[in-house]
Amino acid sequence: MKLLEHPERQMQIVLVRPEGDANIGAVCRAMKTMGFTSLVLVRPDGREPDKEIVRTWSLSAYDVFEEASLYASLADALADSSFSVGFTRRTGSRRRTRFYDLEEIAPGIIRRVLESGELISLVFGNEQSGLDSEELALCSAAASIESHFAFPSLNLSHAVQIVCYSLRRALMGAASGTPGDPGITRREAETVAENITEELRTIGFFTLADSTWLRNFFRDLVERAGLNSRESEYLKSLFEKIRNLKLHRPE
Amino acid sequence: MKLLEHPERQMQIVLVRPEGDANIGAVCRAMKTMGFTSLVLVRPDGREPDKEIVRTWSLSAYDVFEEASLYASLADALADSSFSVGFTRRTGSRRRTRFYDLEEIAPGIIRRVLESGELISLVFGNEQSGLDSEELALCSAAASIESHFAFPSLNLSHAVQIVCYSLRRALMGAASGTPGDPGITRREAETVAENITEELRTIGFFTLADSTWLRNFFRDLVERAGLNSRESEYLKSLFEKIRNLKLHRPE
Repeated sequence: MKLLEHPERQMQIVLVRPEGDANIGAVCRAMKTMGFTSLVLVRPDGREPDKEIVRTWSLSAYDVFEEASLYASLADALADSSFSVGFTRRTGSRRRTRFYDLEEIAPGIIRRVLESGELISLVFGNEQSGLDSEELALCSAAASIESHFAFPSLNLSHAVQIVCYSLRRALMGAASGTPGDPGITRREAETVAENITEELRTIGFFTLADSTWLRNFFRDLVERAGLNSRESEYLKSLFEKIRNLKLHRPE
Repeated sequence: MKLLEHPERQMQIVLVRPEGDANIGAVCRAMKTMGFTSLVLVRPDGREPDKEIVRTWSLSAYDVFEEASLYASLADALADSSFSVGFTRRTGSRRRTRFYDLEEIAPGIIRRVLESGELISLVFGNEQSGLDSEELALCSAAASIESHFAFPSLNLSHAVQIVCYSLRRALMGAASGTPGDPGITRREAETVAENITEELRTIGFFTLADSTWLRNFFRDLVERAGLNSRESEYLKSLFEKIRNLKLHRPE
C-alpha cells in the first residue's frame, strides 16, 4: 500500500451552484473538523463568494476557502477525479442506476484513496434544488444520506458534515485499530468481582449467604457499565478500604 | 417486545445554555431530518428564544421548537431520564471516568430505548465553552464525536446532526430484541448513590475524602449498567449490610 500522508486531501468536496456564501463558510468549518481541506466550487456565472461572509462562518477554517478552486462547470471540476459520488435524496426519478447508501459506499471510497491514491470527488447540489439530472449523470455514482421520510431536507453544510464524518470514521477504521480507553476484559472483570467478594468475606459478610450471586452481580455490573481499568481499580480499592475500616478501627 | 411507535421520542436533545437562537433553529432542523422531535432547553436566566429567528433557521422543523421544554437547570431537565450522555471533546481533565466514542455508545442507547422504552437524554453544552465540569458530572456518561485534532470545534447544530444521524442508523439497524425490564430513572439512581454514600459515611469512610466523587461514581455505575429496581435494591442492601456488620458485630 502506498503511504499517503494526507489521505483526506485526496477527497474533494464539490459544491455545485451554491447560493449562500454563509453556507460555503459553514461547509469549510464542517470539512475541517473532520480533517478535509480540499474544496471546489462550481458557479457557472463565475461569481466569487463574499470573503467577509465566508470568514464569519468558517472561523478557523477560512484557509479551506482560501485554497478552494472555482470552476464554471461540474464537468471541468471533475476532470481529474477517478471517481465521483453525487449526493442526493433518493427520488428514483432522476437517475436510473442504483443509489448507494453513504455508509455502504464509504469503505470503498477510502479503499481507493488508500490503495491507489486516487482523487475522489464528493458532489453536493444547490441548497434548494439539489443536483439536477444532468449533474447527477456526470457523477460515477449516486448516494443518499439516511434521513427521515417526513422531513429529509438536510441543510447543505450539515449534509457535508455527515459525509465527512462518515468518511473520517471509515478512514480511521481502515488506518489501524481504534482509539484507546477500552473497557476491561471479562478476565479482568472476574478478578475485580473476586477481589470484592474476598474483601467482604474477610469482614464476615458471608455468614449465611453463598457468595456466587454477589460475585456474578459485580462482574456483570462492571461489564455492563463498561468500566475502564482506572474505574475498576477504584471500585476494588473502595472495598479494600471498607475491609480496613472494619478490621482496624475501633468501634 | 414492547411496541414503540416513535422510539425517537424517547431520546431528547438537551441544549445547555445555548446562546444563539439561530443555533436553536438549526438544531430543530438537524433533529427533524433524522426523525427526532424532543428538544429541551436549559437556560438559567429563563430567557425565551426569539421566535422569528428560530423560525427562519428551523424552516419546516419549527414544530420541534413549539413543543420544546425550557428548564432553569440541567438537574431538573434530567430528572425523568434513565440515562444521559454529555457530549464533549475528549480533554481528559474535566471528567475522571471513561469517555465513550459516539459510535460505541449508540447501539446501547437504542437497545435501551427499544427494549424498555427508557427516556434518554443527549446533552450538548454552550457554543463557546461546551459543558462545564459540573454539567458533565450530572450526566451518566461522557461521549465524544470523532473529529480531527487540528480543528475539532464542531458547530452546535452540526454536532447534534451527527449524533442524530448516528442514532438513526443504529435505530434502523437494530433487530427486534427481548421484552422490557426497564432501568431505573435518574431520580432513583441518585437515591441509590445517596444511600450508599450515607452508609459509608456512618462507618467512617469519609474521614478525609470528599464524598461527591464517590456518589457520582455510583450513580453513573448504576445508570451505565442499566440496573433495574431489583438490582439497585440489592446494591443498596449490600451496603446496609456492611454498615450493620461494622456497627454491631464484635471484632
